[in-house]
Amino acid sequence: MTTIEVKTRSREELVDITEEVQKVVAQSGVKEGICYLFVPHTTAGITINETWDPSVRKDITEVLRKVAPPGANYHHTEGNADAHIKTSVVGSNAFVFVSDGRLVLGTWQGIYLAEFDGPRSRRVIIHVEPF
Amino acid sequence: MTTIEVKTRSREELVDITEEVQKVVAQSGVKEGICYLFVPHTTAGITINETWDPSVRKDITEVLRKVAPPGANYHHTEGNADAHIKTSVVGSNAFVFVSDGRLVLGTWQGIYLAEFDGPRSRRVIIHVEPF
Amino acid sequence: MTTIEVKTRSREELVDITEEVQKVVAQSGVKEGICYLFVPHTTAGITINETWDPSVRKDITEVLRKVAPPGANYHHTEGNADAHIKTSVVGSNAFVFVSDGRLVLGTWQGIYLAEFDGPRSRRVIIHVEPF
Repeated sequence: MTTIEVKTRSREELVDITEEVQKVVAQSGVKEGICYLFVPHTTAGITINETWDPSVRKDITEVLRKVAPPGANYHHTEGNADAHIKTSVVGSNAFVFVSDGRLVLGTWQGIYLAEFDGPRSRRVIIHVEPF
Repeated sequence: MTTIEVKTRSREELVDITEEVQKVVAQSGVKEGICYLFVPHTTAGITINETWDPSVRKDITEVLRKVAPPGANYHHTEGNADAHIKTSVVGSNAFVFVSDGRLVLGTWQGIYLAEFDGPRSRRVIIHVEPF
Repeated sequence: MTTIEVKTRSREELVDITEEVQKVVAQSGVKEGICYLFVPHTTAGITINETWDPSVRKDITEVLRKVAPPGANYHHTEGNADAHIKTSVVGSNAFVFVSDGRLVLGTWQGIYLAEFDGPRSRRVIIHVEPF
């Protein structure tokens, strides 16, 4: 297992970590297998989505703000209840196949840390397992 | 890894791919293991849900339309921002256990490609790994 | 594969199953690997979220009630269409890394069965695979 650190800059944003994950895959030496990703936080998750147009990421966080508005009337009183909810919506884990030493992603796909209560320093735990 | 092709017929629909996935499991020869599924698109995802009553699938896409209405005011101007958002909600990957050469699904469960920007030809990448 | 049973007490609630999952990990004897979790139901899912403050779980189910209100006008007429939708939002499967025989969870993370149509007896299928 390898842990990478991701610095986020806003309260809510999707940070592209595809390159860092690809580096971990390369260092693992695995040619054919699966890359597992796990975010050990409860107010940030992980998602795979469009890498080409950054406005897509903005749309995702904005729609999630409508679903769970920050500052609404929540039971959890630490001011980040919305961030917990969004984390359960996008999820805390993902996997991507590895072939020929590369992440098998679609043309437009990138891997994103989904920050919902930043800015912070976040961790993503990665393991690459050969078939 | 095996890639199956899925033709979708509407802009938004859940297409039952359980049979096709089961065929890939059978061809793999794996008796006990895990079947991994990955959708290499950013406007279609994968989900596991009720197979018996097709109206459930309609309810899922209709509620997601309310969460992210097509044609609302988005930053992404290609007309499918809602489809990207929905993809991050349902997710791009899933796994199902395999036992005795069969997918281990609950009585009512089926595997669905979740199309949010069809009709199109979509791909699902599948790998069956023995324990 | 091991199946654990989870009794739920309300129509909608997040039940902490972290301890039970940790027991399955211990019994497996696996020191380094991955713990896979799968919920074979279509009106209950699985999610990883805050374990410290139980009010977070209440916020999650309440916001999901707003997304898919019980008793709204659905095509599926069994009275639990909302539960199916919520299951696709949180998902039916998850994995957690295992190191030194323990689940690798963040300080605040716990594993939850997400009940959306209880109270019922639910099952979670678990497999721990060594690296």
